[in-house]
Amino acid sequence: MRAEEIVDEFPVVDIDSPARDAVKLLADYRLSGLVVGTDTSDKPYAVLPASQVVRFLVPAYVQDDPGLARVLTESMADHAADKLSGKTIRDLLPHKAQQVPIVDAEDTIIEVAEVMSRLHSPLVTVVKDGKLCGVITASRLLAEALKQ
Amino acid sequence: MRAEEIVDEFPVVDIDSPARDAVKLLADYRLSGLVVGTDTSDKPYAVLPASQVVRFLVPAYVQDDPGLARVLTESMADHAADKLSGKTIRDLLPHKAQQVPIVDAEDTIIEVAEVMSRLHSPLVTVVKDGKLCGVITASRLLAEALKQ
Repeated sequence: MRAEEIVDEFPVVDIDSPARDAVKLLADYRLSGLVVGTDTSDKPYAVLPASQVVRFLVPAYVQDDPGLARVLTESMADHAADKLSGKTIRDLLPHKAQQVPIVDAEDTIIEVAEVMSRLHSPLVTVVKDGKLCGVITASRLLAEALKQ
Repeated sequence: MRAEEIVDEFPVVDIDSPARDAVKLLADYRLSGLVVGTDTSDKPYAVLPASQVVRFLVPAYVQDDPGLARVLTESMADHAADKLSGKTIRDLLPHKAQQVPIVDAEDTIIEVAEVMSRLHSPLVTVVKDGKLCGVITASRLLAEALKQ
């Protein structure tokens, strides 16, 4: 079994698209992460796990001192997503360049598993001839491994 | 909005149950992680993200030297899940104790988001009166935040 045999289709969001739209996609389709692309390359630029998008609901002062989350009222907390307005996906990406979870279409499931677990990523992107051909999620990979 | 209003039901796997059965549950229901319990407490013992379960498909020598993944043949790689035989969930947990992503039923979505993003967890467990009452996944949390 090779990576390209177990890919799922997956939406790619442009790095300059509105953050709110992309987060809505993540929420509506219950995705484990977003694949971020640019218009200058066919390769994925980044994978943004859902658990990291969630960080943008948390005000900076709470990230610095988690205890402060307790002082926010329920109605203040409910408007957490307002922070996404006017932001693009680029603004949600970590400032430090991260290694992108990319595997080759010909890679085995062990090579896929190695990249996924080393980068703690809920999904890896699969590239064939320099182009994205889909993604493999952790649960899909486990399902395929158990079938054998 | 409080944590208990947005919980989803979620299976809890016993720490001493067979690893293969638990991984099958993860795969079949496309879960982002497993909630691990013990029979001595009503509180969750650990959350095991799917991307970390995947690590158990990777032989130790490949974890130490990722380049070695390339020398495995496709058919050797396809039998990666054989390693789960005879193992229990306890064997899949990290040796070092990890902080469990637990929030209180009364917590706001910012408190939930803070725990989820700080612990890089795809889901948090919600506890009421010392008992697990469900989980909140990252995508569900984002969906609820966007509704406001």
